[in-house]
Amino acid sequence: MTKKTNLKVVLIGSGNVAWHIGKAMIDNEIDVLQIYSPQHAFKLATEWNIPYTHDLSALNDSADVYLFAIKDDSYQKLVAQFPFRNKCMVHTSGSVDIDVFQEVTNSYGVLYPFQTFTKNVVLPFDQVPLCVEANDEKTEEKLKKLAHILSRKQYVIDSHTRRYLHLAGVFACNFTNALYGLAKDITEEKGLDFSILLPLINETARKVNLSFPEEVRTGPAVRKDMKIIEKHLRMLDDEKVKNVYKLISEIIAEKTT
Amino acid sequence: MTKKTNLKVVLIGSGNVAWHIGKAMIDNEIDVLQIYSPQHAFKLATEWNIPYTHDLSALNDSADVYLFAIKDDSYQKLVAQFPFRNKCMVHTSGSVDIDVFQEVTNSYGVLYPFQTFTKNVVLPFDQVPLCVEANDEKTEEKLKKLAHILSRKQYVIDSHTRRYLHLAGVFACNFTNALYGLAKDITEEKGLDFSILLPLINETARKVNLSFPEEVRTGPAVRKDMKIIEKHLRMLDDEKVKNVYKLISEIIAEKTT
Repeated sequence: MTKKTNLKVVLIGSGNVAWHIGKAMIDNEIDVLQIYSPQHAFKLATEWNIPYTHDLSALNDSADVYLFAIKDDSYQKLVAQFPFRNKCMVHTSGSVDIDVFQEVTNSYGVLYPFQTFTKNVVLPFDQVPLCVEANDEKTEEKLKKLAHILSRKQYVIDSHTRRYLHLAGVFACNFTNALYGLAKDITEEKGLDFSILLPLINETARKVNLSFPEEVRTGPAVRKDMKIIEKHLRMLDDEKVKNVYKLISEIIAEKTT
Repeated sequence: MTKKTNLKVVLIGSGNVAWHIGKAMIDNEIDVLQIYSPQHAFKLATEWNIPYTHDLSALNDSADVYLFAIKDDSYQKLVAQFPFRNKCMVHTSGSVDIDVFQEVTNSYGVLYPFQTFTKNVVLPFDQVPLCVEANDEKTEEKLKKLAHILSRKQYVIDSHTRRYLHLAGVFACNFTNALYGLAKDITEEKGLDFSILLPLINETARKVNLSFPEEVRTGPAVRKDMKIIEKHLRMLDDEKVKNVYKLISEIIAEKTT
């Protein structure tokens, strides 16, 4: 079997995103020359049987792409310490600007996987939307090629748009998960198991794969059923949760004509 | 093939819940003697090829169960007009008390399907949690039997607990769908298609089938990343949406130790 690409990658980072994107590269036979992270590189390197270093000065200098998957806060410091110049440097963050690399290289970009990653929760990476941005055409072509191997869903999205996509993701994922948690609190307080909620949670998600959210609204706020809404508000003790109920009900009612 | 039960049912109502539970009964060869609704009974009756009436005075008097799937607001009036006494009367609402029937019968109960129903969006009814409540043991046995035929998931839940379950469902379904809508607004405003959100929405739901919500939290509020949170708040124009972001982030941060 011929390889899908000759691109050589050094992976920088060892968190959830690094693990998932690294695994996707290994699974797709992309040549990951080395993994760097100050403390935990050996764990991932051992799992995947590839070289690693915990020391920036020992970074492999022959990669075609240096792929960063580190905390947003760490970029500035790590880029300043980066030992090479004019290498192709790429990050994976929703919120970090593409320009973070411009002081140290003339070829840089972003490969943002728009998905929620939990360590050891394997998911089909070829379904993850990959958002590509680059500082020039040559780098963009390189990143598109890489994205195309890793996933069936690629988008070219600039830093401004990417920030809004990330914000949308906070609503669709982080906040949605928080609502699952609030629902869990309510059911468990009454002695019911969380699992009773799962068919409803699954169906709610499934429906928006078939119709837009505004087409499948159900519940008291859509019906502007003030009797139930007020009853529910009286049933909630926590002020913040009560306010969430109030606010989202108002938003739903305003959108329902 | 022998029938699973000899129970005869009259279905009262023609909305989403009536359609879904009626269809489940027909599919399971339960004998639906008649469907009543003041205006639209003929539609469902035609679809299922069963008798119907738009007139309460023509209600079939020989059913074992009169199954109500009508609007919460309509119960009081319809129960008062019900032409028979001491029939087994059962409703399907999350919020209506079991006692709504007590003036006109000595056998009554609830069969609450804990799911979101949209007309013509077919779903596997045998996965829908059915919550049973009854005023006496005999009625409970009858309803358990019916529930057992319709679904693999039955629970015996009293009116008080059912109201809280319904409230939990508002968070897990109605409000979650509203968040999907807010995420859609944000992406569409930047020219992106809603479909880019679907892998994230699906994975967020899938994860809580494997782990509890508190175990799979991701995002800026968990990391208490105030820089991103403040950036996001500045990106949102609508005051209510801004407040939703603030409140849910605070709730997440408080729960994360």
